[in-house]
This record gives sequence, structure tokens and C-alpha cells, in this order.
Amino acid sequence: MLPAELVSALNNLLPSDRLYTDPVECYTYAYDNSRKIFPPHAVAFPLTTDEVQAIVMLCNQHKMPLVPRGRGTGTSGGSLPEQGGIALSLERMLNILSVDAANRVIVAEPGVLNQTVQDAVRLHGFFWPPDPSSATYSSIGGNIATGAGGPHAVKYGTTRDHVLGLKAVTGAGEIIKTGCYTTKGVVGYDLTRLLIGSEGTLAVITEATLKLTALPTMIAGITAYFSNSASCAVAIKQIMALPQLPSALEFLDAGSLNLIRNHHPRMLPNDASAMLMIEADGTENEISTTVSSILNACKTDGLIAANQAENIAALWKARKALSPLLREIAPKKINEDVVVPVSSLPDFLNSLEQLSRQYQLANVNFGHAGNGNIHVNLLIDPDNTEEAARAEACLDRIFDLVIRLNGTLSGEHGIGSEKRAFIHKEIDQPTLSLMKNIKLLFDPNNILNPGKLFP
Amino acid sequence: MLPAELVSALNNLLPSDRLYTDPVECYTYAYDNSRKIFPPHAVAFPLTTDEVQAIVMLCNQHKMPLVPRGRGTGTSGGSLPEQGGIALSLERMLNILSVDAANRVIVAEPGVLNQTVQDAVRLHGFFWPPDPSSATYSSIGGNIATGAGGPHAVKYGTTRDHVLGLKAVTGAGEIIKTGCYTTKGVVGYDLTRLLIGSEGTLAVITEATLKLTALPTMIAGITAYFSNSASCAVAIKQIMALPQLPSALEFLDAGSLNLIRNHHPRMLPNDASAMLMIEADGTENEISTTVSSILNACKTDGLIAANQAENIAALWKARKALSPLLREIAPKKINEDVVVPVSSLPDFLNSLEQLSRQYQLANVNFGHAGNGNIHVNLLIDPDNTEEAARAEACLDRIFDLVIRLNGTLSGEHGIGSEKRAFIHKEIDQPTLSLMKNIKLLFDPNNILNPGKLFP
Repeated sequence: MLPAELVSALNNLLPSDRLYTDPVECYTYAYDNSRKIFPPHAVAFPLTTDEVQAIVMLCNQHKMPLVPRGRGTGTSGGSLPEQGGIALSLERMLNILSVDAANRVIVAEPGVLNQTVQDAVRLHGFFWPPDPSSATYSSIGGNIATGAGGPHAVKYGTTRDHVLGLKAVTGAGEIIKTGCYTTKGVVGYDLTRLLIGSEGTLAVITEATLKLTALPTMIAGITAYFSNSASCAVAIKQIMALPQLPSALEFLDAGSLNLIRNHHPRMLPNDASAMLMIEADGTENEISTTVSSILNACKTDGLIAANQAENIAALWKARKALSPLLREIAPKKINEDVVVPVSSLPDFLNSLEQLSRQYQLANVNFGHAGNGNIHVNLLIDPDNTEEAARAEACLDRIFDLVIRLNGTLSGEHGIGSEKRAFIHKEIDQPTLSLMKNIKLLFDPNNILNPGKLFP
Repeated sequence: MLPAELVSALNNLLPSDRLYTDPVECYTYAYDNSRKIFPPHAVAFPLTTDEVQAIVMLCNQHKMPLVPRGRGTGTSGGSLPEQGGIALSLERMLNILSVDAANRVIVAEPGVLNQTVQDAVRLHGFFWPPDPSSATYSSIGGNIATGAGGPHAVKYGTTRDHVLGLKAVTGAGEIIKTGCYTTKGVVGYDLTRLLIGSEGTLAVITEATLKLTALPTMIAGITAYFSNSASCAVAIKQIMALPQLPSALEFLDAGSLNLIRNHHPRMLPNDASAMLMIEADGTENEISTTVSSILNACKTDGLIAANQAENIAALWKARKALSPLLREIAPKKINEDVVVPVSSLPDFLNSLEQLSRQYQLANVNFGHAGNGNIHVNLLIDPDNTEEAARAEACLDRIFDLVIRLNGTLSGEHGIGSEKRAFIHKEIDQPTLSLMKNIKLLFDPNNILNPGKLFP
């Protein structure tokens, strides 16, 4: 229950349609894509930086958890009010403050959808490169808070590389302005990137200055099928050794292909155990060179066929077919997004196969192979406690493997609550302590998304 | 004077050839390219992270200033032992720990020169994009500490965009490991970029994992001359509006051209008052398209001539001729590196001309126009106190102008001691306070490069 004094202060601050306290209304803000449920005691919908500041101040007075939230598409529980308190939904801060094509900049509020940014800048010949699979319905605030990335990160990088500056309200209630408006700037500490990926634990982002990139003239696609994942992993290495980076290099393993085959019997070659979907972008001339280099780099012992796709829809057909099937099995899977160096992919995929055999677990692996960022999905029945225990043990081994291969536990989902218990595998104690102290510096009463990120 | 106990402890830690206490030997470490002189009381040359940690611990015990230093090529006083104490020269930490071409990564110690990195990776088809003009003799540790950039930042970004992870010793003496080895990673706060550009005030970098970029197949150059800076500024805007970014877009103003003309009477067209040196890189086909687009974008009212350079040496001839002349006048100049949005360059250059007339100051302006990053040089006689006072007043107005145009005080030099008094023009009080508190979190006794960055 919220203290009456706090509810009354919030009521004074926000009109009734921007403050939910009814448990039924609040329930919509109880979950994200991690499938965990933690209902907030209230949901506040600020429209301005000043309102955000006022809410943060009130929560400080009452030592009340305040959990910033974009559109709730995260998969690691980052936006869940685990300890109750107030969900701070930024979804109504929807203004695009400026589109400045001459300087390749857009300034927008955090609730603006990634897709809305793309639509606003496309007519000027630009795009904003971060492309999580949720792009059509996730907000830039959430993208920034999680450091989102997607298939095109292999060429264009992630959110971190495409934000110039931020306005934010710290957990202490201070309004800060980070970064600058220009593409170069070295004045003071880089607080912009400290906030990017901080999962709402340091400050609430209320305005973002985003750096735009010119749309490519042309995009070409290649699909390649392999008889085994080892030969596919070698092809990935060979493609990534080419000077011209592909604009996407996505991998589907045997588990993924079988899932598709069960529903679309004729979509894939029967003997394929691994598939690559490869995109190259640039000018027309550039692309023809790149495509032939990539086709050549696909040539490994296990290559079944590598062909240029008729169009981009054809390129992504298998991946699109996989999405609803994955959603179907989603409640029964543990979904990770580990990263290993590209050169270690053969070793990683091989060890992963061994581990899933050893622990008798079905798995589906796919993802952003060009970054070595593989979505490992362990398909379990969560009601089968014995299987769940095996999955937990297997996951622990997978994380150890990733770290041994010089990888990282998360390439784009973040830690949230889901990977909290494992963060010490990657980050040593002194570095973790420093991070915790930074958290307390920004948020001395630990009100902002308390309990997240750190074990 | 250093306490005898500290000297004795340092002597126990380091052999005599790695610890200077003789003032004559120390004097070499008293200056950088800011032309200020602050001799340290000692110079220590660690070889390992553990030695750096031991020195940091000792300095904490004795509350002794410790000023990390690369090769002393900075221009803003960042590496000067202003308050005495110990200069920590990283110049002997020279190991390249690995060149991992398959993953486009090099791991190196901080003393390794930028040029050495380039040489080590070129044969694999790569380069490391940060290209300060000091690249042949500045170290990667210094490049990282200052967030260095150069002409190619317009296409490739600055140091911030090309570092994957760091090992460092905080001011408190903790060894931390930031970032990761892969191109994607969102585990924990981004301490890597917090350290990049922190000018040795937070931690001593002892190892860096650098991200490599494929060398372009071909480079073309264009020189363009304009009868006035206004039309040149319009051309800059037009070039930057093209989808394909140039790999360099450098500007020389009338002052720069006159300086060159005085020594090389036939190098430049007589009627030119502004010049652009433009580089485009990519594949052969790509370049021919880009070059013709750029030549077209140069067409403004004041264009005298725009031509493709015979070769890259010819492209940079004027800039190379300017360098020694600038060094000659260097002791008599105030050298800034302000940035304004590219669309504001016409306004900025025009206002700059008015200000220099108003304050009766000769100036030479040139620089990285594609980023809006202009080196403003006020040519003064420092012994002329009246002129120095005028320059100071003018500088204040220039900084106000830059901020009014939504720019930043420094694009690549950093704050150090030179711009310390002006940082509040750009960074508001709450944000600055937060930065100061971050400093104290990393360095509670304020021993690391004390007094720098903050007013």
C-alpha cells in the first residue's frame, strides 16, 4: 500500500487520467517480455521533465520504489516493479522536439517509438540505426535504457553509438544534461553512455538527442544453407574477415530450422542443419562486389547452397516464420542473448550441442552471428521441476563457457532481474562495487528500479 | 619535496632507471603542448598494472598528487603536474598483448604509440580510426584519456567509438576491468566510456582492447577554393548533406591561407579566402560517385575552383605547409578547438570575423569542418598585457557564441587546466556536481591529476 500522503501529493501533481492506483489498471504495468508478474501500487504518466522530477522527489521523501518503464518490451525484467512501488510510464512523453536534417540530429522525448523516429527521418534520407526486434512498438527511452541493438548492429553498432546527449532526472531528483549536440565533444565525463544501458537504475531519461545515419542506397540479401553448424560457423568467420561488413548476418541452427519445418514443410532444404541470412547494403556497385565476396566466403565443406535472395522479404522469410513459433513456445523457454568472439563461434556452438545433450535439453539457437550474439533458448516445461533444475545447471555451464571464450552474458537484453545472479561471473568484485557506488551516487535512497542489475 | 618515506618506498618498488627524482631529469616531464611548465617532484615509470596499483596506493598513503601521462602531446595542460607530486609516465608500458585479426581486435598497453597500433594492424587490412595530428608520437593511453579525434572523425568517429574495454587502476587503488572483448555487450554500467576522455582524473589506464576497422580500398582527394568564408561554409553544409560522408573535410580560413602565402607565394590562388581539403574513401566505384557529388556540392557563389587532387600528398600540401608556420607562431597564440553544429558554421565564422575585428586581434582558423570542429587561434603577444586582456575578453565572447549556437567548448583537446574556467558555460551546476562526485568516488583522496577538469 502507498502512504496516503504520497497518493494525495501525486493526485495534486497529476490529473486522474495520468495516475493509476486501481489494481486492475495497474496490472497492465506488472509485466514485460520476461513473463514475470510484479504489479506496481500505482502508475504515473508524466508529460514533462519537471513532472518527472516532482515524482522522483516525492518518492525520495517516502523512500518509495520508482520503476521507469518504456513500452515494457524488455526480456530481462528490467522494467518490472519487483519491490512494488510506482511504475513511471514514460509512454506519454511523445513529442519530437526537432528534426534537424542539416545536422543529422533528431531530438525526442523518451516515449517516442523507435518506429516513429524512423518514419520522421526517412523522408530526409536518414535512419536511426538501433533496431531491436521490438522496434515498431518499443520506445527510444527503453532502447536507450537497455542499450538496445538488433540485426544491423554488425555494421552500424548499437544504441550507444547513436546518442549524442540526454536530459535526465537522477534518482536524487537533479535534472542533468549530458553530452552535446555535435558529433564531437570531450567536455567533462561521458555521462551519456553511463546512462545508456543503465536500465533505469541511475536516472530517468526525459529527452534524447539522437545521431542519424544516411539510408543505404540499396540492400541485397543472401541465404545460405549448411549441412552442419560447424561449417556454418566457419562461413561466419570467413564473412566477418571480409573488409566490407555485412549489414546483417543472422544465424538459425538445426533446432530453429526444425521448428520452421514442422509448420512450413517446403520452406527449407531437407538436409539443412544451419542457415545464414545475410544482408549487404551500400551503393549498387558496392553491393555487387560485396555479394560476390560473401557468396565466396560461404564456401565451406558443409555448404548446401548460397544464393542471392530475390528481395528482402524473401531473405527474412525463414526468420519471420520462426517468430510466431518462438512466441508459441515462449512460456516454455529460457531465452539468453550471450555473445562470444566471432572466431569462437565454432567452439561455442559445438560445446552448446554437447551441453544440451548432456543435460537432455531441447534448444533453439539463432541470432546475430556477425556480432557473435547468439540467442540461446532452452525449451523446458517450467512445471517439470526436475527439467527446470537441469536447465538451471546447464545455463550455469553455458555462462561459464561464454566467459571462458572471452564473451559477455548479454549483448542486448541487459541484466534486469533475469541475469542478476550471474553478473559476478563477468564483472569482478572491485568493478561491481564501483558500479554499485555509482548507483548510490545518482540515487542515494535507492528508489530508482531498486534491486535490478546487481546481485 | 617528497616525504623521505615515500621516496624510499618508491625506490623499493622501482629500479633507479624507472624513478626520476633529480629535478633536471624531472624537468622533461614538466610540460606538454600547452606550453605551461609545472615540474613534478618525481617521475615513475611503471611496467605493469600491479606496479601502477602499488604507486597509486603509496600516493594515497601520502596524499600525494599523481599525474598520469602518455607522451605529453596534449594541448590543454591535462598531463601537467600543476600541484607538483609524481608524474606517472606510462610510456614504457609498450607491449602489444594480442593482434586478433579474426575478431578485429588489438589489445595493447597504454604506452604503445597510435602509429605502432596502425603498423601492427595494417598488414591485416585494418586501422584504428582515432587520428589526432600527434598520431605518430602520441600513445593510445593518452588518446583514450583525452578522447582523441582527428580529420577522419567526420566519417569514423573518435576514440570513444573504437574502444571495447579497458583495464585500469582507480584513484583508490582498485584494479578494474571495464567493457568486454566483443562488439556487443550490455552487462553493467559503461565504465569504458566514462574513462575515455576523463583526462587521468578517475583511473590510470593500463590495458586497452581496441576495435579495428577495415582499411578503405581507395582514397581520393578534392581541393576547393572560395573567395570568402561564407560561401565556403555553405559548401560545407552542402557536402555534409550528401548521404555518403567524406572521410575528411578540412577547412582553412583567410588567415591560414595568408600565413601560407607569405612563405609559399605560388601554392594558392591569389583570390582565395577559404579552402577545403576533402577526402573520400571506399571502393573504386563508390569513390567516383562520391567525388562527383562532392564537386557538385562545392558549387556556391564564391567558388573559385574545386578539383580532384592528383594524389593524397597533393591534397594535404597546404595543410602540411601550415603546420610548421603554426608551430612558429605557436608561443604567441591561444589555440581553441570549439565545435558548432555544421549548419551554424556560416553564422559562427561570420561572428568570429566580427569579434576579431571588434577586439583587434589577428586570428587563424582552420580545422575539422565536417564535424563543425574549428581550431580558433588568436595570435597575440603574451608580453603585451593589454592585448592579452583583449584576447581573454574575446575568448569569453567566442565561448558564449559557441554555446549559443548549441556547440561545445572542446571537440578533441579536452578541458585540462586551459578550459577549466569555462566549463560552467557548457555544463550546468547539477551535472557538474555529479561529475565531481564521480571523481571522488573513483579517487576519494583526490590524488589523480588533482585540480584538472573542474573549476
